[in-house]
Parts: sequence; C-alpha cells; structure tokens
Amino acid sequence: MYLLTYIYQNSENIGFFINENNSVIPANIVFSKIHSLVPRDMIGLIEIISSLDVDEVNELKSSINSCVNESINICDIKILAPIPYPKRNIICLGKNYLDHIKEVNNLKNVSSDIPDNPIYFSKIAFPAIGQNDFIDPHSEIVKELDYEAELAIVIGKKCKNVPIENVEDYIFGYTIANDISARDIQTKHVQWHKGKSYDTFCPMGPYIVYKNSISFPPNLEIKSYVNGELRQNSNVNQLIFDIPTIISDLSSGITLFPGDIILTGTPAGVGAGFKPPRYLNSGDKIECYIENIGTLVNIIK
Amino acid sequence: MYLLTYIYQNSENIGFFINENNSVIPANIVFSKIHSLVPRDMIGLIEIISSLDVDEVNELKSSINSCVNESINICDIKILAPIPYPKRNIICLGKNYLDHIKEVNNLKNVSSDIPDNPIYFSKIAFPAIGQNDFIDPHSEIVKELDYEAELAIVIGKKCKNVPIENVEDYIFGYTIANDISARDIQTKHVQWHKGKSYDTFCPMGPYIVYKNSISFPPNLEIKSYVNGELRQNSNVNQLIFDIPTIISDLSSGITLFPGDIILTGTPAGVGAGFKPPRYLNSGDKIECYIENIGTLVNIIK
Repeated sequence: MYLLTYIYQNSENIGFFINENNSVIPANIVFSKIHSLVPRDMIGLIEIISSLDVDEVNELKSSINSCVNESINICDIKILAPIPYPKRNIICLGKNYLDHIKEVNNLKNVSSDIPDNPIYFSKIAFPAIGQNDFIDPHSEIVKELDYEAELAIVIGKKCKNVPIENVEDYIFGYTIANDISARDIQTKHVQWHKGKSYDTFCPMGPYIVYKNSISFPPNLEIKSYVNGELRQNSNVNQLIFDIPTIISDLSSGITLFPGDIILTGTPAGVGAGFKPPRYLNSGDKIECYIENIGTLVNIIK
Repeated sequence: MYLLTYIYQNSENIGFFINENNSVIPANIVFSKIHSLVPRDMIGLIEIISSLDVDEVNELKSSINSCVNESINICDIKILAPIPYPKRNIICLGKNYLDHIKEVNNLKNVSSDIPDNPIYFSKIAFPAIGQNDFIDPHSEIVKELDYEAELAIVIGKKCKNVPIENVEDYIFGYTIANDISARDIQTKHVQWHKGKSYDTFCPMGPYIVYKNSISFPPNLEIKSYVNGELRQNSNVNQLIFDIPTIISDLSSGITLFPGDIILTGTPAGVGAGFKPPRYLNSGDKIECYIENIGTLVNIIK
C-alpha cells in the first residue's frame, strides 16, 4: 500500500497509488465507500490506518482496488512530500553506516570514530519539499552542498519507552529522504542543526509505503545518482544502529507521535567523501532510490 | 503587555495579565469589545498583534485595561506554557555566555573554546510545560540532571535573511525558559539533541512580554535559584552573540515563523559548573528569574 499527498485541480489531497496502472485513488473516495470518517491530511490517514487490525487493513486494500475506475492518472497530479508540514522537526541519525564514517574523515568537527551510541540531530522541514521540487542551493551562503539518500521511518502510533521486540508495532511505514547538507555550515557551527536546516533541504517521498509491504527489519537496496551517475550503493541492512535499536533508544524518555519522521543515516558515496569533494551545483539532478519504495528526484535550482 | 495561555474551568484560554492587580483578562472578551476576530490560540494572538501599528497596539492596551471588571484572579487559573505546542522544535544557542563556557570545560564532547560562530541545536518541546509544572527527572535513564535559565525570544512575523538593523521588527516578545539538560546523555550522543529533548525538559513562561515593554537589545538581570539558593546571576546583555546577530544569522536561508522560539543560552552557575557538580534531585525547586518578565518555577518530580 502506497500513500501520497498531492495537488490535483489546485487543491491538496491525500490518496493511494496503485503501481501497476499508474493510478491514484483519492482517499475521500475510498473512505466514503467504507462509510468511514475521511481523514483531513496524511497524519490523520496514518492515525486511522494505524488503528486497524490485519483484517481491516486487508478490507481497506480491497476497497482501494475496487475504486480503480475513479482513479486519477499519476501524470495529472503534482506530488508533494507525503507529510508536507511535519508537526515537529525531522529526527536524523548521523554516522550510521560504517563506509560513510570512513569516507568523511576529512570533515572538521566530525569525528571518524564509530559511535558508541546513536548520534541524533534534528532538521527543520517546514515545509518539506516533494518529488521533482527544486532544491534552493543558497549559493550566496553555502559553498559545499551535498546529498544523502536515506531510508525514513514514519511513526504510526504514539509511543514511549518501546521495547526492542515491539518496535514494528509503532512504525507506520517508510519513505525516502534526501538529507541535503551544507558541509561548510554544518562544520562551522559545531552542532549540525543549521547546516541541515536551510529552506528546501528536506525532500521526501514520493510515497509512504505501508509497513506490511516490507520485511522487518528492512533489507532493501539504497542508491543515489547525480546526473545519472551512481554515487551511493548499499543496503539498509547495513545500518550500524538498526531500526529496532533506534526506535527503542530514541523513545526512551521521549514520546514519539504519529507522523514523526526519523531518517536512519546515509551510506558512503556522498560528495564530501570524494577526494577532491564533488559537491552539488545548479542544475544537478539527484535521484535517491530505495528498493520497493521508489525513486525521489530533485534538481538543484 | 503580558500574554499567557491558561486553563480556567477546564478549558484552555489565552489572555492578558495585569501585574498591578493580579488579574487575567481573557482574550475573547478584549477582542469582542474591539469587534475583531478572536484568535484561536497564542500563535494566532501573536499574528494579530504583530500586524498592528503602534497606535493600534496602544488602543489594544486601553481595551485590555477597560476590561478589568471582567477579569479572573491569577490564583484561579492554571498557567500553561505560553505556547504549549510549538509548531517546530525550539532552537537553542549553546555556549553563548563567556563565564558559562569556562565553567563547563570538564564536559566530554563540549569544547571550552569560545565559538567563532553561534552554536545552534534544537530541543523538542511537544508539549512545553508551564509554571509550577513538574519536571520528570527520567531517573532510570538520566544521572546528571541540570538546569539552565535562559531568555527566550518569540518571533512575531514570518521572516528570512533579516538584516541586523531590522531584527527587532520581527520579534514579538520574550519569555523565560529552563533548558533542562541531561548532561550524561547530552555528551554520550555527541550531538546534544537527545539529552535536551526528554519529555518535560522545556518549561517556559509564565508570560510572554510584548517587546515594547523591554529596551532593545534587552538589558535585564537573569538569575536562577535551586531550593532558594542563588545559582546563576548575570545579565542578558552579556550574550556573546547578541539578539540582532542571532536572528540575522539564523534567518539567513531559514524562514522563521510567528511563534518560533529561540533560547539565547545560559550564564554560569549551572550544576555541571560546580566541582563536584551539583545536579538536580527529586523534590528540588528551580526558579528562573528575568527582570521585567517574571519568575518561572518548576519542581523535580
């Protein structure tokens, strides 16, 4: 089950994407068929689906498929970030792939030690940008613009102090994020927050994939391409701190809410890892691919 | 002009506090008198007041004073954080008073150098807690619980790339925050985000003071007390990066929105600064005082 937020005929909607025939079923059509309250936005949709049991999720899927005659073609919509205005900042993991830690050992204020504990920082994404949106390079300020393809976890249910063995219960699904980073600003300010938080620096999407389409913990290829050239090529099973560990550790003492988004870190192949570095320039096209989720495409303005 | 969010007769309200007679005037009474739309919450109230010119602000103040017969006594309400659910994380400045940098030179992963640039990190405050609320010490996880009295800036108008000389135009006002910090967690995770973000770690209030009651840049005593003992004692004019510099620098490339909250850093006297350290324990009462704003009081559960 693929969920998306989109613009159609000048209004923002949420719906389901059916891969086989490139069609989008608006959520209000599906929910009116099953005589259920229509969710207001993606966070509302996440809350409703998270409250369903397995049989009810299967019924929902059947309802979606039965609405295919009322679908919109994917080419007729503008895809937004699945959650265009996250309620809180995005939580990010730093240094969570071994090969990426080794490649960025030349960055000031970034240790090349393997962390003993997860490194969390936050990223402003208000709004988050979506598929095919332009990334503002902020070129008057930022001289070292970089990409980072990442698997993003979307939380489904309010939770706190989650035991490792129960983590999957609180996950709603997954999407793709490009953790755009100003390396010069990230290192200049010691803490990474500002260099990760410039406007348009958090493309996400194109879809949220519901968790039951993905094995747990996920075992999915992750790649990125710049202007068609393969740059990152790994598997999300290579995370140093895996998803059960992250959610269990992060939720110890911190309540997570439906729609919270956690970026799990990036593998080797970012611009800063090349010698000399290969930072992004105006016009560059970045594609972030994760197996079974899709490809997130953005262009530097 | 003092603004607050509070619970009265089981419902959440916003209003104005009149210091002289300890009375609270509900915003809906004031706005119905001036035939204006009643703001829904504190962020709505901030947006409305920020759109007024000087004469209109003075009219609003007269209207508030004319409603004094319809006031509620401050003792009959429960004061919440002025913005109980900030739309985005709180943005915090680290190491922004010289004497504080010197006192924490024993903390791992915290350099004792004077920063060349502002150090920004973010803090989850969802919800933020308010006056007299209990702080959860998370004592099963956190062993080094600390306090930090800080002047908090509240943004009034959407802004980006603000020149230093125009910063005051975009500020709405000021409040007090206690940047509760788990020193052991803050240093263990390298980036400070998690150790600053446990549930209840962001008490704020009791009021937002509108900017025209405060000279610019602010020149106000800031103090904290633990169980009545003076611990921090400085003046917010001692900031290394002052408020014009912070807002101008932070807004370069990052859009700020009405209701965004920025904590400006803490002076010397925190628990980690004592040798041996004097961390907080269950039952401790912390008072954070800023001249012309008030005293924020919280107790460790």
